[in-house]
Amino acid sequence: MTLKLYIDRMSQPSRAVLIFCKVNGINFQEVKIDISKGQHLSSEFQEVNPMKQVPAMVHAGFKLFESHAILRYLTYAFPRVADHWYPTALYRRTEVDSLLDWHHSNLRRGAVGYFRNCVLGPAVGLPLNLQAAAEDEKVLLASLAKIESFWLRKNGRFLLGNDQPSIADLSLVCEIMQLEVLDEKDRERLLGPYKSVLKWIDDTKNATEPHFHEVHGILFKFKEKLLKQRSLRESSTGESSRKPDLQAKM
Amino acid sequence: MTLKLYIDRMSQPSRAVLIFCKVNGINFQEVKIDISKGQHLSSEFQEVNPMKQVPAMVHAGFKLFESHAILRYLTYAFPRVADHWYPTALYRRTEVDSLLDWHHSNLRRGAVGYFRNCVLGPAVGLPLNLQAAAEDEKVLLASLAKIESFWLRKNGRFLLGNDQPSIADLSLVCEIMQLEVLDEKDRERLLGPYKSVLKWIDDTKNATEPHFHEVHGILFKFKEKLLKQRSLRESSTGESSRKPDLQAKM
Repeated sequence: MTLKLYIDRMSQPSRAVLIFCKVNGINFQEVKIDISKGQHLSSEFQEVNPMKQVPAMVHAGFKLFESHAILRYLTYAFPRVADHWYPTALYRRTEVDSLLDWHHSNLRRGAVGYFRNCVLGPAVGLPLNLQAAAEDEKVLLASLAKIESFWLRKNGRFLLGNDQPSIADLSLVCEIMQLEVLDEKDRERLLGPYKSVLKWIDDTKNATEPHFHEVHGILFKFKEKLLKQRSLRESSTGESSRKPDLQAKM
Repeated sequence: MTLKLYIDRMSQPSRAVLIFCKVNGINFQEVKIDISKGQHLSSEFQEVNPMKQVPAMVHAGFKLFESHAILRYLTYAFPRVADHWYPTALYRRTEVDSLLDWHHSNLRRGAVGYFRNCVLGPAVGLPLNLQAAAEDEKVLLASLAKIESFWLRKNGRFLLGNDQPSIADLSLVCEIMQLEVLDEKDRERLLGPYKSVLKWIDDTKNATEPHFHEVHGILFKFKEKLLKQRSLRESSTGESSRKPDLQAKM
């Protein structure tokens, strides 16, 4: 009956699921799937998730993937999880559903694309695709603006005006945390204008500590590695680590 | 208490919501939002959905957008809706959740991009973005392959091996229906290899007639208009209506 979570902590939805379990005292076994080593492509893992993606889960023989579905399932399967994570009241639950669905084609799409084009690509020596990166940045900024002006419009520390976090807060904040690896100027340029978003990120962190910080440790280490790489590149070529201003270039 | 649905029948998730209500005998008022005329950008509609997208819904003062959230809500709010649409049994419901989430970043992403690049763009005179179109086609074909090999792997007429449709069948089939407007050769090239997908589309149509056909009427008319446009273009320029083989060109 042990819950098995197949996780790469570098993946933002993996971190959301992991933090959720730790905060809610759900016992689980963490099975590390290192994407950078291609472990998600192994035949053993494809037996768990034929989509070859993390996070995935097995509980009492039941196999599941897609982080939002896993988070919903955990609220059903572990009744001691507090109601605010996925409220049972009809309108409140439906608002969380709407927000989770919106996330896929907006914040997630923009942030994943931006991270892939502007961080992962350059880190492994791929040329910057300026057009794709500008498009991703546009989606990312429009999504942050909508969180600021719409999803955080009501009084309350969390999305939808709630005074305690839902699974949507956790999912969206873990997504935005991927931007931690940017250099400070870029991160400030993207997130700086959104004061309510920054406060909400802090509130979500605070509501889920010490687990939030512990689970994100891998990301902070990755950032250090990137900074060292950039610094080495600069000292050997004289090249600036500052990425181009994508909007200005398009 | 009347349910108001803000719909453009050219939008595939709008059609899914509309068919769902008709099949389940839910009374509603259809408010037409014509995207081609920019009606989704009006201040009146932004009062309903500040994301400026269809479908949207108002029920007893409760405003909602995102088609999957609307479909889930309708199964909660109208208890006479048969259980198979969104099963209450834990594992069966969770599998539908997983499939609905998967849809966003896979079939929907591929189909929407392909339709925009290869149908809408050329119809309004935009140049074909070969790289984007090839990327969309790749996502679309990979998604169709996963429906064939995974989501339809169990015996049963519908996704997940069910013998009656869920909201996921309706959502995904309405998405694929957008490809109806392609010329026959292109449609055959994309869908032809997936025999189980084709059978499942027919089964979903049959389970929701006569509403399925009636709601898709607008799409068939749009196809006629496109065929006329192509024919006119060909006769005036001698240009072939056949789109380039994107994979071969990349």
